Amino acid sequence: MTSRTATTFPPPVMEARRWLDGVTFPADRPLINVSQAAPVDAPPPQMRAAMAEMLEDPATHLYGPVLGMPALREELAKQWAAHYDGPARADQIAITAGCNQAFAATITALCNEGDEVILPTPWYFNHKMWLDMSGVTSIPLATGPDLIPDAQAARKLITPRTRAISLVSPNNPGGVEYPGETLQAFFDLARETGIKLLVDETYRDFDSRPTPPHTLLSNDNWDDTLIQLYSFSKAYRLTGHRVGAVIAHPDILFEIEKFLDTVSICAPQLGQRAALWGLQNLGQWLAGERAEILDRRAAITENMPRLAAKGWKLMGVGAYFAYLQHPFAEASDKLAPKLVQEAGVLTLPGTMFMPQDDPAGGRQFRIAFANVDRDGIGQLFDRLAALDWPLAPPHVTA
Amino acid sequence: MTSRTATTFPPPVMEARRWLDGVTFPADRPLINVSQAAPVDAPPPQMRAAMAEMLEDPATHLYGPVLGMPALREELAKQWAAHYDGPARADQIAITAGCNQAFAATITALCNEGDEVILPTPWYFNHKMWLDMSGVTSIPLATGPDLIPDAQAARKLITPRTRAISLVSPNNPGGVEYPGETLQAFFDLARETGIKLLVDETYRDFDSRPTPPHTLLSNDNWDDTLIQLYSFSKAYRLTGHRVGAVIAHPDILFEIEKFLDTVSICAPQLGQRAALWGLQNLGQWLAGERAEILDRRAAITENMPRLAAKGWKLMGVGAYFAYLQHPFAEASDKLAPKLVQEAGVLTLPGTMFMPQDDPAGGRQFRIAFANVDRDGIGQLFDRLAALDWPLAPPHVTA
Repeated sequence: MTSRTATTFPPPVMEARRWLDGVTFPADRPLINVSQAAPVDAPPPQMRAAMAEMLEDPATHLYGPVLGMPALREELAKQWAAHYDGPARADQIAITAGCNQAFAATITALCNEGDEVILPTPWYFNHKMWLDMSGVTSIPLATGPDLIPDAQAARKLITPRTRAISLVSPNNPGGVEYPGETLQAFFDLARETGIKLLVDETYRDFDSRPTPPHTLLSNDNWDDTLIQLYSFSKAYRLTGHRVGAVIAHPDILFEIEKFLDTVSICAPQLGQRAALWGLQNLGQWLAGERAEILDRRAAITENMPRLAAKGWKLMGVGAYFAYLQHPFAEASDKLAPKLVQEAGVLTLPGTMFMPQDDPAGGRQFRIAFANVDRDGIGQLFDRLAALDWPLAPPHVTA
Repeated sequence: MTSRTATTFPPPVMEARRWLDGVTFPADRPLINVSQAAPVDAPPPQMRAAMAEMLEDPATHLYGPVLGMPALREELAKQWAAHYDGPARADQIAITAGCNQAFAATITALCNEGDEVILPTPWYFNHKMWLDMSGVTSIPLATGPDLIPDAQAARKLITPRTRAISLVSPNNPGGVEYPGETLQAFFDLARETGIKLLVDETYRDFDSRPTPPHTLLSNDNWDDTLIQLYSFSKAYRLTGHRVGAVIAHPDILFEIEKFLDTVSICAPQLGQRAALWGLQNLGQWLAGERAEILDRRAAITENMPRLAAKGWKLMGVGAYFAYLQHPFAEASDKLAPKLVQEAGVLTLPGTMFMPQDDPAGGRQFRIAFANVDRDGIGQLFDRLAALDWPLAPPHVTA
């Protein structure tokens, strides 16, 4: 006897936290935790003050509409249209309890037992887990050294059971920002073959490009093909309040409403109000947050030569993540607990983002650097550069 | 092509709200909304003040452990053990984003495609919806005029695909409190046949009995068979904050952790802190809430003779609900929109709680009376008693 959850693996972030058990870190060499993509600070004081006021409104404590607060849907639609320079309406937006739930709801609205969804590798493990639990086969789409997936390679993977291609840009775990042309090529492929294109844009607020990341909303009737996912968690430091969104055709939202009603009734009301307040008031503040993240990203690049001299490679960097290839003989899943013990660094091995039979994951680590300032990034690289573990033969890391 | 959501029906509560579209209610005869089981007031001022303080703790805004705040799990375990007069530990408790999510997570941890779960009818529609979306067949267990399910009748429905029997007590929609012996008989049946017994106790804080509602926790190793579900929403008026719980064997929680991580990462942190504060500080306040609900329940019973004279029957009453059999010729799903238009009463028809092929639902209405005070209940019964719709032949309502 097995169950849906038995078909998948335990949460990687929780597994990684268990590597900390029993390990102590000296005061002058504290743990550097680059394992989870999450802010570690509270929202800014002005938002906290606004949230305290929201608690005086009884509606903040009560159920709301399943698909979300109308005012939040309206505001996000307006700003979404501006951000992507294309049309978006409130009835194309559903508010979810976080972006993971947005993905789960969307897959449940699109797929059934035995269907297939194409995911570039390395993939985001929670996506893989939900597909497993849904009885949907994840079809890995290998990416090259630049971590950018290729639509023509994806075309060969499409079968009569394929329901969607699911992308994450800027990418988790790879950090890379998919070029607009790449996304358009996937859109064209999806439309031509009658499947959906999911684009998880959780990290879009930290995209380095000054222009819209893509022009997918300029396609006529984009919502017959495109489904976007979003999170308010990173932009406004609302991770603990669980607010995300799906942007899709109203007919898909009609299906998603069934899932949301059954699994959460509605997204938390305080988080929704805070997200709306953030959209209306924190544009400038968010621009500063983005600048800080971009500076940390620059610090990664600047520190990289020291590691490159030891055989490391930077495969991708952007948004919250750097994705590194290490030079060691052992696989990353074996090395990760040792990194905690010997270097005081908690990071996730590439194996957590890859099919088990793909050896590439063993060569890779994801560094979620968003919480670490320039100084901390310097220390992180010091510790990694100091590792004197046995090296892999040169052809393995070529 | 179909999808998991396409296998089930739209959210009944949202469908019912649409019956209000375009209907206006005179000021001297406002809508009486008895459609949803939810508080309509905010938590008490002392809790709101405590919540405002919680916003100053950065951790309130950040991710927490997938299975919930340790302090909340500890406190609920302690109070759970006291309430049920049996052992319960923190590692047997997971905190969820509401009790619907507790059910969804549990089913996903127990079942796979093609499995079966036995549900007494009338059932709670969100349970049916999740089983549909999960590819799990809901096996209806008919109850008699007293709405109490019979374990020996359930025994005949168990097949090799049966994974669980799922009960709700006090019952939604029926209102009835299942006797302790009934629950023990189901426990014995489940243990004997190697399946799980789920008991959703969302409404337990409004149970009329002065003693524990059952002694299931006195069974040795109860957690090899029993899984309880709970909600903090009704007790502390936290519906908008989404906090519930599963009480089960740690091995089941290990599986549930995969679902929660993937679908919500963690339950909202403010709601969890508020629930903990409520457990620690609102015991006396909750006793007053319960007394008020019990008084409203008494008002239902006291008003009933007027309706009985018109051919109505009270099938069950308790917790938030009265479950009524109406005397009319038309089916309840046809009458419900007319009730809005002609009587200014929004209520859910029994068809929403029944298999489509069971005609009993057409004879029934659920009245979620918790939000309506004594005076309002009197008016509600006035309006129902005044209906002069064509009656069904006597044998139909016998």
